Amino acid sequence: MWELPAPYLVFLGDTTEPAFAKTAFGLRDWARERCVGEWSCGAATVTAGLPVLTPAQARDRGARGLVIGVANFGGVIQESWIPSLLEALESGLDLVGGLHAKLNDVARLRAAAERLGRRLIDVRVPPARIPVATGRKRTGKRLLTVGTDCALGKKYTALSLTRALAERGLEVDFRATGQTGILISGRGIPMDAVVSDFEAGAAETLSPDAPSQHWDVIEGQGSILHPSYAAVSLGLLHGSQPDVLVVCHEAGRTHLLGHPEYPLASIEETIELNIRLGRRTNPAIRCAGVSLNTAKLDGTAARELLASESRRLRLPVADPIRGGPEFQALVDACLA
Amino acid sequence: MWELPAPYLVFLGDTTEPAFAKTAFGLRDWARERCVGEWSCGAATVTAGLPVLTPAQARDRGARGLVIGVANFGGVIQESWIPSLLEALESGLDLVGGLHAKLNDVARLRAAAERLGRRLIDVRVPPARIPVATGRKRTGKRLLTVGTDCALGKKYTALSLTRALAERGLEVDFRATGQTGILISGRGIPMDAVVSDFEAGAAETLSPDAPSQHWDVIEGQGSILHPSYAAVSLGLLHGSQPDVLVVCHEAGRTHLLGHPEYPLASIEETIELNIRLGRRTNPAIRCAGVSLNTAKLDGTAARELLASESRRLRLPVADPIRGGPEFQALVDACLA
Repeated sequence: MWELPAPYLVFLGDTTEPAFAKTAFGLRDWARERCVGEWSCGAATVTAGLPVLTPAQARDRGARGLVIGVANFGGVIQESWIPSLLEALESGLDLVGGLHAKLNDVARLRAAAERLGRRLIDVRVPPARIPVATGRKRTGKRLLTVGTDCALGKKYTALSLTRALAERGLEVDFRATGQTGILISGRGIPMDAVVSDFEAGAAETLSPDAPSQHWDVIEGQGSILHPSYAAVSLGLLHGSQPDVLVVCHEAGRTHLLGHPEYPLASIEETIELNIRLGRRTNPAIRCAGVSLNTAKLDGTAARELLASESRRLRLPVADPIRGGPEFQALVDACLA
Repeated sequence: MWELPAPYLVFLGDTTEPAFAKTAFGLRDWARERCVGEWSCGAATVTAGLPVLTPAQARDRGARGLVIGVANFGGVIQESWIPSLLEALESGLDLVGGLHAKLNDVARLRAAAERLGRRLIDVRVPPARIPVATGRKRTGKRLLTVGTDCALGKKYTALSLTRALAERGLEVDFRATGQTGILISGRGIPMDAVVSDFEAGAAETLSPDAPSQHWDVIEGQGSILHPSYAAVSLGLLHGSQPDVLVVCHEAGRTHLLGHPEYPLASIEETIELNIRLGRRTNPAIRCAGVSLNTAKLDGTAARELLASESRRLRLPVADPIRGGPEFQALVDACLA
């Protein structure tokens, strides 16, 4: 595992689409104590609401690394970011990246890091020698968050449920499957970077045999109905062998992010299809309820929607960020 | 993509087990014109029935590359093969391998290839910079073979259908997704070696836009209901956007190969689930029929089974290796 250079300066690139900044938001919300500030470049409009600091200022306040807090389409290191990344190295910060593109593959960054004695850490590198999945049922309990799309709350839901289970005195581990989760929890497997023949095997490795009352809460990825990422989602579902699914959705999202020609599958279809496919490796799989991201609604509208969706689906429906009795009911249903 | 040095000398190593020589047999059966001969070493007893030639003799008859035609347990390059492989390089042949083990990782081969100006080509390495799938519908017609399990005829079915479509005067390309298919057709993408986030994108790259009456016949991989390999199958299904599926099954196989605890899904469930998932990227997807591997049956029993399965499923059911009117009916249904 990596020894990460916290605390961090969170870099937002030149991002104008908030959905691409979920790494920055995740670090702010779940690892705030490790973030001294944020920084961006060019025409960036997105902010995580952290103090805005240059690399030199961040270094003065104790930062040891600059973390790339954006995940654009394809996971590329933009040419327009390079001067900022070089400035961070010059200011004494290591660089931490979780994109598909590797910091270590950028010659100018590598040369500068070598000259300055700084580290380039790519967390989106899966462990070596992942085995092919065996399909053997493992001991312990497992919960997997799945979704109707990308970037709508699967990681937040898993982190919230992990915290809630721990508060109830249960033995529980959060199992990170993406770069932000890994940066937050300090471990995990970047499932989308695993070679597809070993995808289910990586999920088996991620949540090994455990005591019978122990819970692994596994961060979901993508969606089984996403035209780009379903391979990741299905390998993770098969290898995780979840006992419990929580289906994540964003209120009002009607089409896949970045794909206006692809309507979202309904919550019901997402539940039914995940149960059907997941049953292959765990016949006892069940859906405990729905995590509904209501961030764009006011409090009253959100509570009303949670209640009406719960009646319609006959399942607990909660927004983990809002918490409240709805969320406790969802936790109850997970443990039922 | 590679420019493969055909025609080939097919290397059988010191193999005594015919099951390990599937690549050599596939080349003989489907790319006979690209094979000038075969060669082996040590105590080999397996033959593909090609003229036996030394590398020097093969070079004189026009061979440009030696292809490793065996896939032993573990996909290793045997130490006992190295002198033969060095002799091939000395004789002016490039080396082509599709094993898990890479020719380029063997220092003695790399040194000899550099000294002699020869190439070492590992076809089980996906192309660089595969894009994320867009989900955009492409022009042209596509057929994908899918299966109830691994290793039961998806490649032979796709090759047979490619040949049949060509015989009917249609413009058609076979699209290889595994190492043997790639060696046969001289191109393709090893889908099981692609990083999962790019699996559907690789399938999109494999069968690009084409004239409206052109067919791509795409070799399937794994099975959507396989606990180890479903990620490969689903990414290939989504990215291929097939108009037509042909479901492949082996008569009498009741459990997944190597997984006696996993019953095979029925042909009907395999059809239904592939249609349902494939509809996401091509709403017009349909199943044309079933390719039934009857190699273990005698001719009469095979014909009876094809007929009774066709009545039961209300679909054309054929064994492409046996051909006959059943197979022509399956081809008709693909084109309907």
